[in-house]
Amino acid sequence: MTGAGTIDLNCDLGEGYGPWRMGEDDALLDIVTSANIACGFHAGDPAIMRRTVKSAAERAISIGAHVSYPDLQGFGRRHVERSVEELSADVLYQLGALDALAIAAGSRVAYVKPHGALYNEMAVDPDLARTVVTAVLSYRDDLPLLCMPGSATEEVARSTGLPFYSEGFADRAYDAQGRLVARRLPGAVLTDPAEVSSRAVRMAAGGTVRTTDGAELSLHIDTLCVHGDTPGSVELARAVRRSLEEAGLQMRSFING
Amino acid sequence: MTGAGTIDLNCDLGEGYGPWRMGEDDALLDIVTSANIACGFHAGDPAIMRRTVKSAAERAISIGAHVSYPDLQGFGRRHVERSVEELSADVLYQLGALDALAIAAGSRVAYVKPHGALYNEMAVDPDLARTVVTAVLSYRDDLPLLCMPGSATEEVARSTGLPFYSEGFADRAYDAQGRLVARRLPGAVLTDPAEVSSRAVRMAAGGTVRTTDGAELSLHIDTLCVHGDTPGSVELARAVRRSLEEAGLQMRSFING
Amino acid sequence: MTGAGTIDLNCDLGEGYGPWRMGEDDALLDIVTSANIACGFHAGDPAIMRRTVKSAAERAISIGAHVSYPDLQGFGRRHVERSVEELSADVLYQLGALDALAIAAGSRVAYVKPHGALYNEMAVDPDLARTVVTAVLSYRDDLPLLCMPGSATEEVARSTGLPFYSEGFADRAYDAQGRLVARRLPGAVLTDPAEVSSRAVRMAAGGTVRTTDGAELSLHIDTLCVHGDTPGSVELARAVRRSLEEAGLQMRSFING
Amino acid sequence: MTGAGTIDLNCDLGEGYGPWRMGEDDALLDIVTSANIACGFHAGDPAIMRRTVKSAAERAISIGAHVSYPDLQGFGRRHVERSVEELSADVLYQLGALDALAIAAGSRVAYVKPHGALYNEMAVDPDLARTVVTAVLSYRDDLPLLCMPGSATEEVARSTGLPFYSEGFADRAYDAQGRLVARRLPGAVLTDPAEVSSRAVRMAAGGTVRTTDGAELSLHIDTLCVHGDTPGSVELARAVRRSLEEAGLQMRSFING
Repeated sequence: MTGAGTIDLNCDLGEGYGPWRMGEDDALLDIVTSANIACGFHAGDPAIMRRTVKSAAERAISIGAHVSYPDLQGFGRRHVERSVEELSADVLYQLGALDALAIAAGSRVAYVKPHGALYNEMAVDPDLARTVVTAVLSYRDDLPLLCMPGSATEEVARSTGLPFYSEGFADRAYDAQGRLVARRLPGAVLTDPAEVSSRAVRMAAGGTVRTTDGAELSLHIDTLCVHGDTPGSVELARAVRRSLEEAGLQMRSFING
Repeated sequence: MTGAGTIDLNCDLGEGYGPWRMGEDDALLDIVTSANIACGFHAGDPAIMRRTVKSAAERAISIGAHVSYPDLQGFGRRHVERSVEELSADVLYQLGALDALAIAAGSRVAYVKPHGALYNEMAVDPDLARTVVTAVLSYRDDLPLLCMPGSATEEVARSTGLPFYSEGFADRAYDAQGRLVARRLPGAVLTDPAEVSSRAVRMAAGGTVRTTDGAELSLHIDTLCVHGDTPGSVELARAVRRSLEEAGLQMRSFING
Repeated sequence: MTGAGTIDLNCDLGEGYGPWRMGEDDALLDIVTSANIACGFHAGDPAIMRRTVKSAAERAISIGAHVSYPDLQGFGRRHVERSVEELSADVLYQLGALDALAIAAGSRVAYVKPHGALYNEMAVDPDLARTVVTAVLSYRDDLPLLCMPGSATEEVARSTGLPFYSEGFADRAYDAQGRLVARRLPGAVLTDPAEVSSRAVRMAAGGTVRTTDGAELSLHIDTLCVHGDTPGSVELARAVRRSLEEAGLQMRSFING
Repeated sequence: MTGAGTIDLNCDLGEGYGPWRMGEDDALLDIVTSANIACGFHAGDPAIMRRTVKSAAERAISIGAHVSYPDLQGFGRRHVERSVEELSADVLYQLGALDALAIAAGSRVAYVKPHGALYNEMAVDPDLARTVVTAVLSYRDDLPLLCMPGSATEEVARSTGLPFYSEGFADRAYDAQGRLVARRLPGAVLTDPAEVSSRAVRMAAGGTVRTTDGAELSLHIDTLCVHGDTPGSVELARAVRRSLEEAGLQMRSFING
């Protein structure tokens, strides 16, 4: 767990494929402390993974395996029917592939963050969460999993002894139960840098978030997720980092916290 | 290197994809001592890899990473243009993916055998061989490589200190220089069980092979490659194993030799 | 619609991919009168499609576009989330691809038969059926669609004026409502050649099927579906054809009926 | 052939895949008169093809099938070993797929332009050119092919009666023989809008190009290729179009010329 006074910033990186690119990886590498790196199933071919891993390793940024359902065309945002055996094999395959590239770059995969539909479905489906947790445990039983606090993912990870870290979204509205408001609803995504930065500081330093009903909800957060794939998102991430530093927080990977 | 009196049999396994199967894996698992397992680039999806790794681990058969150019439709038999960086990343990706599945099954990848076009091209191209050898070294510097004796692959592996083991083909004709006769030429592939078995014993016990010009060529062999994907090939593999045992050879993975 | 005294036999063909094969295409081509040819989304690469189309054209067998969700690894048996625009584009893409190969072989696509999960989901989902029907209409408005009688597919096709033909399964149990009994239930799949053949004749000549509750249900059938991908299935298909011929039925594509 | 006083501008469009985009399609659709639309083999999934075809059809821009080797990861820039049968099937598959989407949009594929490695290899390899030309002929024998003047593609197309149109590159240096100077050589790619525009006008109106040795080479051009995937390329394309119009040339698809 991060100590008081430190905070981690994580973001999705290496989400190109073949000739295509997504997001501003170079700018983000100067902002974040943890990199969720695509493993080839929703994005990221081996050459892109290799470059991204090297860039992260050179900057001492933590390398996270951003594992996904096999769905390149849908960018891992769609549900894909997988048996327990298939999903388990998919997770191990991606985890090992990225870890080998990390080892070759003098580093290791430091954590696992599920991507897209898998992330969202695990968060509410203990059986699905168990399949992923069990797969990770069977590879390296000290490899932390990253997801939302209060998710089925957290519950299952903690019950098995797999380290768990929780992430918050400073640019997303939370409802009274501490769940994210669905993207399609008005007000779900915040874009004002001042507001997002102020929420980030409150989450990182105070461990609270203001919910849509105006209450101040207690929320333990080890890392804040920032984005780089929409216009203005890099500037927003930069503003968030600046505000956190000005508030006296030390930027540091949750792994080393 | 295998001690006197022992011999290894290796074959390609797990070469299905999705709903498709290739070769008689179940029969072969009772015959061989080393399994070259497809890693998803020419064949083998994660679920098939997982099953094959488990079957091999249960029988204490050595697990080999059968790494390939990315070419599912061409089964890895075609040249694919890859830069040094791309090929290096491809090898590490496949190696790590299979190793994670092996670790989850309580085992490890025990060796690397390149597949198809990559195998053939490395054997005569030291630069290509160096790319693959360097990639393997950067992951695990004690991980043996399997290829033909006298190949560029052997030369480069030995010069870098990567363990190397050499394989022979009892069912293929060798020319005076100890090279395989091209498949398309008459007499290149032998199918008579008695002849193939007798060649296998001579290679395994005596370290020689009769070449197409009738000479007896000295050839150090750590493992013999058998096949299971053509009619009669399993019977041939079984006959070879029986002959080797009857000649007093002990069947044993070259890794543990 | 087929005239009295004629019946069509259709089966799935060309379901290999790259180096892999599925089913006994050569044997089936001598038995059936209509070929459902995979279009690359669940099986069938362009070279396999080309060969299968040529074989069908040479024998004057009707060529059907066996369109599927994009799901090679799952063989089109899984649901894939597609928007109306995406599914419409998928259907047109596959339809045009096969039609071009048919045209090059001196023939044309003669009908469309959805595959796997798409077939099953359309049968009970009028919106999904409408998307596929509308896509087919926008390409060629006289191109027949093949599905189960009483399905949403039939209803939507008939309401739009797209020709519709209905298929029956002599080797599957029907419930009292004329629906197929789910495969996983006991007795769902019939394998006795005598029983299957007798059901085939009754369906083709009499337009009835005996349901699981022992009743004789009236069922209009234009074509019977036979299989070639499980042990004994080719023999079963051959037995069915022989029985139909012995019962005086003329084997003829429903398209030309 | 274009009449005197008219010129066509063609460019590559629809080169995204799944979540990824390439080039500024919207801007280019207001500049060009012919759209080379990716068919899924180097870029372009069915949904992207559908949208691009509709946008082109609405603007009465000619739709070209931008057929490629199957090479999504390499963007069709790499050689892929294909037998005559395989390449022929690949071309027909892509051609038919795009044509079906065009028909559904109330249009038709108006021409074929090979992409990347296939384009370059056909231009110097008559056997390869013959395979593609024969495939196109077997689908629609009046479907024009687009390539460089003086190429093997032109020679083979003309010898078979397939309509052929020749394209020029105003932003590329030509050597004394009228061949493009390789991209990697200095001066191969021109970026000064004034120079490129002036060359465009000379090619379109005068039928000549200034070669690297300073000579004025006669070069019959039906269409000029412009790009939209590098910084400044859309502005360059716009400048070229403006200069052509100011020189009194009428912008018009070569198909209708």
